[in-house]
Amino acid sequence: MNSSPFQFDLLARDGLARAGIFHTPHGDIPTPVFAPVGTAATVKAVAPRDLKELGATLILANTYHLYLRPGDERVARLGGLHTFMGWDGPILTDSGGYQIFSLKEIRKIDDDGVTFKSHIDGSLHRFTPQKVVAVEENLGADIIMALDECAPPLDRDYNVQALRRTHAWAERCLRAKTRSDQALFGIVQGGVFDDLREQSARFLVGLDFPGYAVGGLAVGETKEQMHHVLDRVVPMLPEHKPRYLMGVGTLKDFFETVARGIDMFDCVLPTRLARHGAAFTRDGRLNLHNAALAADARPIEEACTCYACRNFTRAYIRHLMQANEILGLYLASIHNLHFLLDIMRRIRQAIIDGTFAQLKQEMLAHATASRSTA
Amino acid sequence: MNSSPFQFDLLARDGLARAGIFHTPHGDIPTPVFAPVGTAATVKAVAPRDLKELGATLILANTYHLYLRPGDERVARLGGLHTFMGWDGPILTDSGGYQIFSLKEIRKIDDDGVTFKSHIDGSLHRFTPQKVVAVEENLGADIIMALDECAPPLDRDYNVQALRRTHAWAERCLRAKTRSDQALFGIVQGGVFDDLREQSARFLVGLDFPGYAVGGLAVGETKEQMHHVLDRVVPMLPEHKPRYLMGVGTLKDFFETVARGIDMFDCVLPTRLARHGAAFTRDGRLNLHNAALAADARPIEEACTCYACRNFTRAYIRHLMQANEILGLYLASIHNLHFLLDIMRRIRQAIIDGTFAQLKQEMLAHATASRSTA
Repeated sequence: MNSSPFQFDLLARDGLARAGIFHTPHGDIPTPVFAPVGTAATVKAVAPRDLKELGATLILANTYHLYLRPGDERVARLGGLHTFMGWDGPILTDSGGYQIFSLKEIRKIDDDGVTFKSHIDGSLHRFTPQKVVAVEENLGADIIMALDECAPPLDRDYNVQALRRTHAWAERCLRAKTRSDQALFGIVQGGVFDDLREQSARFLVGLDFPGYAVGGLAVGETKEQMHHVLDRVVPMLPEHKPRYLMGVGTLKDFFETVARGIDMFDCVLPTRLARHGAAFTRDGRLNLHNAALAADARPIEEACTCYACRNFTRAYIRHLMQANEILGLYLASIHNLHFLLDIMRRIRQAIIDGTFAQLKQEMLAHATASRSTA
Repeated sequence: MNSSPFQFDLLARDGLARAGIFHTPHGDIPTPVFAPVGTAATVKAVAPRDLKELGATLILANTYHLYLRPGDERVARLGGLHTFMGWDGPILTDSGGYQIFSLKEIRKIDDDGVTFKSHIDGSLHRFTPQKVVAVEENLGADIIMALDECAPPLDRDYNVQALRRTHAWAERCLRAKTRSDQALFGIVQGGVFDDLREQSARFLVGLDFPGYAVGGLAVGETKEQMHHVLDRVVPMLPEHKPRYLMGVGTLKDFFETVARGIDMFDCVLPTRLARHGAAFTRDGRLNLHNAALAADARPIEEACTCYACRNFTRAYIRHLMQANEILGLYLASIHNLHFLLDIMRRIRQAIIDGTFAQLKQEMLAHATASRSTA
């Protein structure tokens, strides 16, 4: 019963940066890892075979969205999320907490859970820790997240109250869990307050989760505050368990937080920005609507090996964007995902080679020296 | 100079139905052939590598649209349409006539050409036969179409006038043509009027085009009228040149018109209907938004070998449609294109095997017996 299918092997260290492998029932996740986000059981504009080709080894899906549509019980009856969406690799589901606490629709929070209105049809719903675990068990992801309360990072009183609930809910999630083929991660909260963050890390480590997220970051605090929190929290987390920084997905953040011992990331930015016509490059973001690209026969990025860059010019993709063609959104999404997945592979290799600091300096200097080319 | 890269080899006949190969500078086109439509230099929602996988051997692009955006001269400077859109197989461009004569914006037709307003920005433009050939030479498709005037099929007076222009323009297109690596097809017009159609076929055959389209059909006349026109016109066309029925793309039309000697088809329906959530099946159209599919674990079509049907359920694709996910449009487009391309391959094989009548009877009986399943 206790032989968990989840194991985190640390392969190399370079400073505080780590390279490892997190084993799951649906495959190994080499870390550090970037997980593309598939909110509604699809990474937007991209097919599962594209994700395979891109080398994605973990994707995230949103519990809140899937609970509302198509419904977690329906997903379960259709064989679970892997079968439903045609992705046989590892999946992580969030707890829905972040979405619910971001909703503008009225909601009521009490010690037992949170009542909220669907953004789709205004219907009333309630999530408790037990309910969230039940929903995540229906979805059947490999990694599932505990329900937490996301507080504004700078509001101390709010964070004190929220942390109390987050901790009680973490315990209740653990107790509610019935499936042994899912790893439940705890989420450290506490805003920008050292004592609360330390209290949270200590408490959750005591519950012995197989992995830990640092939550409540990348939500409006400064980079310095984010780094400060990580400097405090990460050293308190067990070395042999993966550490997940939720919602972070820029090149600079990758380097700065991998350097502080983070192993896992997810972010909607690569696909969201792609749909708005912005492409990631080492020289900054490229505006794919820009008239300056109309006759530009270069690929989005010269040395890039993605399908978009191997086959299409900036001029063509700019044309597709101007003409509102779906193919433009697809190619930009492919490129942006490749960009981040490729960076993460290079970061991992650098850690193994002991050259992480060098790569970090080189990449960040380049990103700073050059500004958006369009 | 006269060794044309275009040659049409007839491989088999079954009644009036023909199986052949049309050789072009960008590859062989087995006929009968269905050409997916890539209006703005992209078959909507689908990448060139998907088209290869689907077995597409010819795609159509629209001269009117590409002339306006991104501009034919720009496409030429970027290496021509094949390079621009990343499709190295055969391409056909229409003349723009059909679009211009469909425009609601005011237009002026005279013997020399037609003046029209852009649907994008209302700017004024003029197409003459010479101009259209120049635009199509800039685009660089393998098969290019002569400028014709599309008249309402039942208006005799209009058709008499339009035919005079269409014939004069056909001659002027031939004279204007400079590239030897493009085949210019003539377009037989004449509405539903036997004498006009015969006059048109006779005149254009005299000009010795390497291929002929039958235009002005599938624009509002009855099926009986369409078949009657084909019964009159097709036997007048040279046996050793391909015959193209523009804008036709339903299963029933394929069978009925291949049976009358047609070799080439194009149609926007498979991708347009897909984006509206309709999937082709042998049992009729399936509404992918239908709530009845929400728990349906079958693929769109049981025996279908397309990527969508091999990997995803109706329930999943219905979910994607409900959630407005691009992947839903992609999967439905892939399926619908596969459906028509696959039918055409079976039709071709049946002609070669001498079983075309049998296949026609079987498929049409099935399509008639069953109605839309949703």
